[in-house]
Amino acid sequence: MAVIRKHRGHFLEDFVPGDLYRHKGGKTVTEGLFAIFTDFSMTTNPLSKNARYARAYGFDGLVVPPGLVMLVVFSQSVEDVSENARANLEYIDMRFGVPVYLGDTLEAETRVLGVKGSSSNPMLGVVHVQTTGRNQRGEVVLTFQRKVQVWKRDKDAALHDGEAAPERIETTLGLPPYDRSRRYGELAHLTNADSYLEDFTAGDVIEHSRGRVVTTDHIMLTGILDNTSQVHCNQWMVSQDPERFVGGQLIVFGGIPFNLCLGISSADVGDNSLGDIRYATGRHTAPIFAGDTVFASTEIRGVGEFPGRPDLGVLAATLRGHKFVKKGDAVEKIEIFYLEREIAVKRRSHYTG
Amino acid sequence: MAVIRKHRGHFLEDFVPGDLYRHKGGKTVTEGLFAIFTDFSMTTNPLSKNARYARAYGFDGLVVPPGLVMLVVFSQSVEDVSENARANLEYIDMRFGVPVYLGDTLEAETRVLGVKGSSSNPMLGVVHVQTTGRNQRGEVVLTFQRKVQVWKRDKDAALHDGEAAPERIETTLGLPPYDRSRRYGELAHLTNADSYLEDFTAGDVIEHSRGRVVTTDHIMLTGILDNTSQVHCNQWMVSQDPERFVGGQLIVFGGIPFNLCLGISSADVGDNSLGDIRYATGRHTAPIFAGDTVFASTEIRGVGEFPGRPDLGVLAATLRGHKFVKKGDAVEKIEIFYLEREIAVKRRSHYTG
Amino acid sequence: MAVIRKHRGHFLEDFVPGDLYRHKGGKTVTEGLFAIFTDFSMTTNPLSKNARYARAYGFDGLVVPPGLVMLVVFSQSVEDVSENARANLEYIDMRFGVPVYLGDTLEAETRVLGVKGSSSNPMLGVVHVQTTGRNQRGEVVLTFQRKVQVWKRDKDAALHDGEAAPERIETTLGLPPYDRSRRYGELAHLTNADSYLEDFTAGDVIEHSRGRVVTTDHIMLTGILDNTSQVHCNQWMVSQDPERFVGGQLIVFGGIPFNLCLGISSADVGDNSLGDIRYATGRHTAPIFAGDTVFASTEIRGVGEFPGRPDLGVLAATLRGHKFVKKGDAVEKIEIFYLEREIAVKRRSHYTG
Repeated sequence: MAVIRKHRGHFLEDFVPGDLYRHKGGKTVTEGLFAIFTDFSMTTNPLSKNARYARAYGFDGLVVPPGLVMLVVFSQSVEDVSENARANLEYIDMRFGVPVYLGDTLEAETRVLGVKGSSSNPMLGVVHVQTTGRNQRGEVVLTFQRKVQVWKRDKDAALHDGEAAPERIETTLGLPPYDRSRRYGELAHLTNADSYLEDFTAGDVIEHSRGRVVTTDHIMLTGILDNTSQVHCNQWMVSQDPERFVGGQLIVFGGIPFNLCLGISSADVGDNSLGDIRYATGRHTAPIFAGDTVFASTEIRGVGEFPGRPDLGVLAATLRGHKFVKKGDAVEKIEIFYLEREIAVKRRSHYTG
Repeated sequence: MAVIRKHRGHFLEDFVPGDLYRHKGGKTVTEGLFAIFTDFSMTTNPLSKNARYARAYGFDGLVVPPGLVMLVVFSQSVEDVSENARANLEYIDMRFGVPVYLGDTLEAETRVLGVKGSSSNPMLGVVHVQTTGRNQRGEVVLTFQRKVQVWKRDKDAALHDGEAAPERIETTLGLPPYDRSRRYGELAHLTNADSYLEDFTAGDVIEHSRGRVVTTDHIMLTGILDNTSQVHCNQWMVSQDPERFVGGQLIVFGGIPFNLCLGISSADVGDNSLGDIRYATGRHTAPIFAGDTVFASTEIRGVGEFPGRPDLGVLAATLRGHKFVKKGDAVEKIEIFYLEREIAVKRRSHYTG
Repeated sequence: MAVIRKHRGHFLEDFVPGDLYRHKGGKTVTEGLFAIFTDFSMTTNPLSKNARYARAYGFDGLVVPPGLVMLVVFSQSVEDVSENARANLEYIDMRFGVPVYLGDTLEAETRVLGVKGSSSNPMLGVVHVQTTGRNQRGEVVLTFQRKVQVWKRDKDAALHDGEAAPERIETTLGLPPYDRSRRYGELAHLTNADSYLEDFTAGDVIEHSRGRVVTTDHIMLTGILDNTSQVHCNQWMVSQDPERFVGGQLIVFGGIPFNLCLGISSADVGDNSLGDIRYATGRHTAPIFAGDTVFASTEIRGVGEFPGRPDLGVLAATLRGHKFVKKGDAVEKIEIFYLEREIAVKRRSHYTG
């Protein structure tokens, strides 16, 4: 008889540049998953709320919003890539492909692009990976790179230090063609009147007025995503080792504030969007915990053409999340999230009247 | 560069009697939304639990229960009508129309019927509105009036005091015809045997035996409904101004106890109903908070004919919600909800045996 | 005018050996219920995650996992059998039948097999029942016996002490035939490589490495299942009588840790399973409360043939749940759940390469 304790997930010394992990599980987007996350996140874009609107625009039905596509694909990579991570450092070049609909099954794989040991801590290092999610027809729905700080299993193990070239993954944001006969103007009351492309000016900063507290529901939400990382749900483990685990508190999975910030910003910058194109870079700049209230702001960096689509433009913006913390009598504003986004936004000239 | 802070929602001085707001968003009733709310609310009516039963009765499938229809339509009106409200004062003449099924998309609009400034507080006044929800075919699913106490943005702004006549919105409760060949008796074990029309006597008061605590889940539930009111979810905001916000606590959205009270009462008065017809008046008589346990009672006010449907009758009842609060050694019973309902209830003579 | 307080559920003196209860309600498995429970429970078996995988194996679509089938059928029996129970003592001979799919409607009935008063407490006794769940075509999906400790309503009431023979309920685990042309090997990366039948040795004990804290979400989860037992959700009631109700705390419904333990174990023993066949016996050996972190282990008791299916074997295992409690400086490990399982597990020889 043997007592077996399988540790799931890779440690720093297991990663080899060039290796490919085909992730386990896969996930079908049910109406349950959709409702919980789309609605929880406070998204206001009717493409993800109102099937009549989505169909009138030429989509096949309710569109899974970019934040949920990201969560479903990302979470599949957690066991292989970051179950034994200390921190998620950066999202890089996250690009969206074909639309995801209810009933689609998403599967994901990750290529190791780089491994680098820490010079200051012999138990840590950084892994650089490229993760791609595809639907049941093999079409790319999302691809991104990320850098993660991962623990070693064995301090003395040799590392596969080095780099590999990223795969060239083509993505084209899947958008139905513009078709004047669809009479978009009859649906214009369903979105905000002040969030068309013409409404944005580079340099403006929009302080989104709503905030939302995160409760212990984050634990269930993270579980529903199949995210297996223990720092989000194993209270006993973190209570036993408060020095290692931020004072013995469960950290909220970054995907939760990522989605909340997208949602909080959507009434002001996202509800006349037809899709998020690309996130050039993103990072969680501070952890959040149950009880924190999340706020967000958007800085408009640029307003450009969308090649081949005179009805649309590209809004380049920086989305920031923040929370407030009391320090004695003072209140400190702490940035918790940073994301550079490019969004395909409708022109008022083509979609109203 | 400008820093922009858009305030969503109207203030008292924005409302003009006769104006119509076509609300943003709209909402498709997914199986996720349905499961979370129908089941959460403790409804026992098999029309909303058991598709085999619902189809056998001639419905197209699971029927979205009246409480959820109300929540979906009401929540769409929050941004325009009550995001800047102090209190929801009264529901008036709430009437249900065609059945709502999974996959239906509900959209809503609200007409302003009256505006009246407060004589005692120059920052407050009452707005009277009429909200109507329709499905993707334009059929009315719900219409109701409500009165809301709304804040002014600017103390010195002039008000559009006055009144406008309500629109005449016809509703006919959508019910499949009675058809003896359906052999209803074979399904009779799926509902309570003591909640047919013949079981009710005017004057009786039924103290429903079950109670249910409300947890911080109310925050997620409210978010899933797209209810954007900040007093239900922005903990930081209410903590900063406890005098304005009931001691710094998040108030539970009234739709939660509204639904819970309907659900708690359903085993005793609602599970042999084919539909709620009308709520003549309703109000939240005290706020509830996370940690409160909700109880309910029903007073039977009358038992009448249902014109043209000898198989049914109309049960007129008053549904009350309450909670208990400890004051020192004493326990105080506080009424939290009051609703006058008319329900279409099956006669035992036609549905059993 | 009368004040009526209907008590739902049976008391000890109401049970008569041989009586059959056809339970109220029934329940259609929506995508919402499925997402909440399947994903919450941390199940890793792709049959319940990935519709592409499930269809490739010959199932009609996503398969409702055994733990959720059990919860849906069990919960329907609560009002009649255990709403007035003190404790659920034992599950016996729980057997699974045809697969359950999204959209199926499950209804349940329970036969009373035995009634026995307590020799030490005149207000208590044990009821032995047999519950069977069927789908909308009348096919058995689950049958099991259980023993429950039930309160008497009236201390002096006579009991129907005695026994009745169980019904003979045939179950055949519904499995698609093995078909080499399905190219199972192309899907092998979606499950763990070390959980095929060949990987198990009788006597091994697998300590599953993940744990999960239970939050107050248990209250909503239990409500969503239509479980009406008040000890899980009526905080006021239990606070008023802490001596009767474990110190005034809400007990977590046993179905929650039952499902969590199945889910926590699935990465190591369940994700190459095609179905749970039978639970010979099971019991909740200690209560759990919000804040407890649930862990699990599996003892392999035997590895056998599956008659007529050379591609499969039967894994006999004991699943145990536990939690840790601090007692001063010491930590006590408390067993909370015990289940003897037989699972149909794939052979690596037939499903890879």
